[in-house]
Amino acid sequence: MNRLFSFLGGSRGVWKVLRQESVVGEGLPAVDYVDLIAGQQQGAAAVWQLSGIVSNERYVQREEKQLLVQKQEGLGRVEATRAALIPIRKTAAWWNLSQDERRAIFEEQSKHIQIGLKYLPEIARRLHHCRDLSESEPFDFLTWFEFPPAHEAYFDQLVAELRKSPEWQFVDREVEIRLERAS
Amino acid sequence: MNRLFSFLGGSRGVWKVLRQESVVGEGLPAVDYVDLIAGQQQGAAAVWQLSGIVSNERYVQREEKQLLVQKQEGLGRVEATRAALIPIRKTAAWWNLSQDERRAIFEEQSKHIQIGLKYLPEIARRLHHCRDLSESEPFDFLTWFEFPPAHEAYFDQLVAELRKSPEWQFVDREVEIRLERAS
Repeated sequence: MNRLFSFLGGSRGVWKVLRQESVVGEGLPAVDYVDLIAGQQQGAAAVWQLSGIVSNERYVQREEKQLLVQKQEGLGRVEATRAALIPIRKTAAWWNLSQDERRAIFEEQSKHIQIGLKYLPEIARRLHHCRDLSESEPFDFLTWFEFPPAHEAYFDQLVAELRKSPEWQFVDREVEIRLERAS
Repeated sequence: MNRLFSFLGGSRGVWKVLRQESVVGEGLPAVDYVDLIAGQQQGAAAVWQLSGIVSNERYVQREEKQLLVQKQEGLGRVEATRAALIPIRKTAAWWNLSQDERRAIFEEQSKHIQIGLKYLPEIARRLHHCRDLSESEPFDFLTWFEFPPAHEAYFDQLVAELRKSPEWQFVDREVEIRLERAS
């Protein structure tokens, strides 16, 4: 079972970049295409490679997990020809919080799970953890979203809601890349 | 700041093996010495190399964190000439639990933090996470303990208490290596 995935930004790939921007902090070199591969590519010709691992959920409680499992759809739906890659890094202050403090900010204050649930099943999502892959990863998380073009505005709304939340005060680097399936 | 550490088992090292055993599941090849290094060693001559990363705590709540910080001592104390390396793997069933279910087993049922606190500051401890370092790590955690020889029986008691707990029903591989500082 693959848990490790990499995003390769460069001059070719399955996903064509429509827009790439730095939301907070340092951006990423501009690329025309992004590929999503299982594992990591040694000596990749890509301009950049970002890797992350699919792991257990850190904040989701039993009832929330059941709702997520019921409502969410997988990646690779034929109609989901739009995508977004959002790499995020959180501050040291976030990582120094205790588990109950992080959960309180994440859900009781920021409604991260509740907001995400509202946009299911239209927006499919996979979270990749980078922080514990090595000592020197540029981001803590890579979130990948896939949705039909008709739901692009709906996706804008999801992202805007999360960015207004108290949790986002702990985000010190965020890049957003919008994509369209090229082939 | 180093977060990634490796344990190298082989024919030389700072820590001399006094005893090595499989507690549950497959053991590790027998070695005479273990070295603890920052980072990872490429092409190491060691018999085995186990790596893990120091990460944020996953279950500790604010008040528990304060107690831990107050009571715990660091590695490298001159008098702490005994050590133990305990690599552990947990079952898929554990990782499929939600955060609140894992916390309930870990602390409300098993008193993992409370038990650990009883043995501070005599037993110093560092937990290394392996699970998200790659797809194919042989263990999920490497726990490293250091203590003065006079507290060896005290350490036996700590380990015995944890192994009797409900949390340990989710452990499907565990190795224990007891060591003495050689130099």
